[in-house]
Amino acid sequence: MTFDAIRAQIVAFRDARDWDQFHQPKELAMALSIEASELLEHFLWKSTAEVEQRIATRREDIADELADVAVYLIELADKVGVDLPTAIQRKMAKNALKYPVEKAKGSNKKYSEFTEEGAS
Amino acid sequence: MTFDAIRAQIVAFRDARDWDQFHQPKELAMALSIEASELLEHFLWKSTAEVEQRIATRREDIADELADVAVYLIELADKVGVDLPTAIQRKMAKNALKYPVEKAKGSNKKYSEFTEEGAS
Amino acid sequence: MTFDAIRAQIVAFRDARDWDQFHQPKELAMALSIEASELLEHFLWKSTAEVEQRIATRREDIADELADVAVYLIELADKVGVDLPTAIQRKMAKNALKYPVEKAKGSNKKYSEFTEEGAS
Amino acid sequence: MTFDAIRAQIVAFRDARDWDQFHQPKELAMALSIEASELLEHFLWKSTAEVEQRIATRREDIADELADVAVYLIELADKVGVDLPTAIQRKMAKNALKYPVEKAKGSNKKYSEFTEEGAS
Repeated sequence: MTFDAIRAQIVAFRDARDWDQFHQPKELAMALSIEASELLEHFLWKSTAEVEQRIATRREDIADELADVAVYLIELADKVGVDLPTAIQRKMAKNALKYPVEKAKGSNKKYSEFTEEGAS
Repeated sequence: MTFDAIRAQIVAFRDARDWDQFHQPKELAMALSIEASELLEHFLWKSTAEVEQRIATRREDIADELADVAVYLIELADKVGVDLPTAIQRKMAKNALKYPVEKAKGSNKKYSEFTEEGAS
Repeated sequence: MTFDAIRAQIVAFRDARDWDQFHQPKELAMALSIEASELLEHFLWKSTAEVEQRIATRREDIADELADVAVYLIELADKVGVDLPTAIQRKMAKNALKYPVEKAKGSNKKYSEFTEEGAS
Repeated sequence: MTFDAIRAQIVAFRDARDWDQFHQPKELAMALSIEASELLEHFLWKSTAEVEQRIATRREDIADELADVAVYLIELADKVGVDLPTAIQRKMAKNALKYPVEKAKGSNKKYSEFTEEGAS
C-alpha cells in the first residue's frame, strides 16, 4: 500500500465529517503528542521481560496506538504541505551524513553520547 | 512509494550501524514521544496567524521533525511486529463505527465533547 | 505548607510500599511526561470558551492531574539530588536576565518570537 | 520556603512582563508537556549506569529542566484556580486507598501490573 493511498483515505475520513475546521496544525500536533504518550504508557515501569510480555499479550492495543499516532502524523503533514515520504528520504540522507557507518559502527563511544553529539 | 520500501530503508539504516541493540521498544517509544514534543514546540505560544507564518517560513524544519516522528514510529511498529498500514486500516474501520458520518456531521454537539465521548 | 513537608510525605509514601526500586530516574521522567500529557488532553480540540467551561466543570479531575505531575516531579527532583525550591529560584534569576522587564514588556515583537529567541 | 511564596514570585514575574495574555491554560499545558519531554531527553538511550553518570555531570542542566516544569505547573495550577498543595494532599489520600501498604508491599504481583490495575 502506498503512503498516498493511506493519506487520501485519512483526508476523506476527515472531510466526510467536516472535521477540517477543528484539525488545525497546533491541535493536530497536540493530538499526536498525546497519542505518542499513550503508546509510551504501555511500557512504563516495565522491565525488558515485562515489555516483551506486554507486546505479546497486548499487540492489538499497541497496534491501535501506533495507528493513532500514524493517522495524526499523516494528517498533520498533509495540513502543513509536507510530503511525508519525501521528508523521510531527505531526513535519512541528513542522518546518513551525521552518523556515517564507519564512525557510528566502529566507535567505542557510548551510543547515547554519540547520537547526542550529532543531534541538532 | 510504499510503506514497505520505507520500512526496509529504515531497518537497513539501523542495522548498518548495529543500533538494534539500543533501539528497544521502550526507548523507541520515548524517542517518538520526544520528537512529537519537538514538533509541538513549533506552535507553542502562537496565534493561528503566527502558526501559518511559522509553517510558511520554517517548512523544512517542520518537515524534519515530522520525518523524525515517522522514522521512530515505523521502526517501533516493525520492532513490536505490527504492520503499520494494516493497523491504520483496522483502526480507521473502528473509528468509522465510533464516529458515523451522519452522527458526527449532523450533530450540533461540540466536536470536542463528541470525540471525547467516543474515545476509548 | 512547605516544599520540604510535601517532599517528605511523598518519599514516605513511596518507601512504605518499597517502590524506590521501581522509581528509577528514567521511569519517573517517563511517568512525569505521561501525566503532563494527560493534563494536556483536557484541553485538546477545545476553543477558549470550551477550555473555560472544562475548567469550571472538571476542576477536581484537572487538580488530580496537576497533583500527579507534581508528585512525580518532586520525587524525581529528590531522586537526582536537586532541591526544587532552590532550582526554581536559580532558574527564575536566569529567566530575569534573559527576559528583562523593559525589553519583554516594551517590545512590540511578537511574544512567541521573543521567547523563542531567548530560549536556550 | 512555602509553595505560596514561590507561586507569588512566579505570578509577579509573569505580570511584570504582561505575559498573562499569552499564558492561557492550553498553552501552559503545552509548555509543561514540552518541558517534561526535554527532561526525559536527558535519559534517552541511556543504561542505568549512564543515567547515573548523566545526573552526576549534568545536574545543573537537569535542575533547570525540573525548574521549568515546576514553574509552568505552578502557574497553570494558579490559572485554573487549583491550590497545588491541597491538590497533592487530596490525591495522595486517594492513592493511599488505591494502593494500601499491606497490598502494595506484600503483593508478589509485578509492580507494573499492580499499579496499572489501580490506575483510573
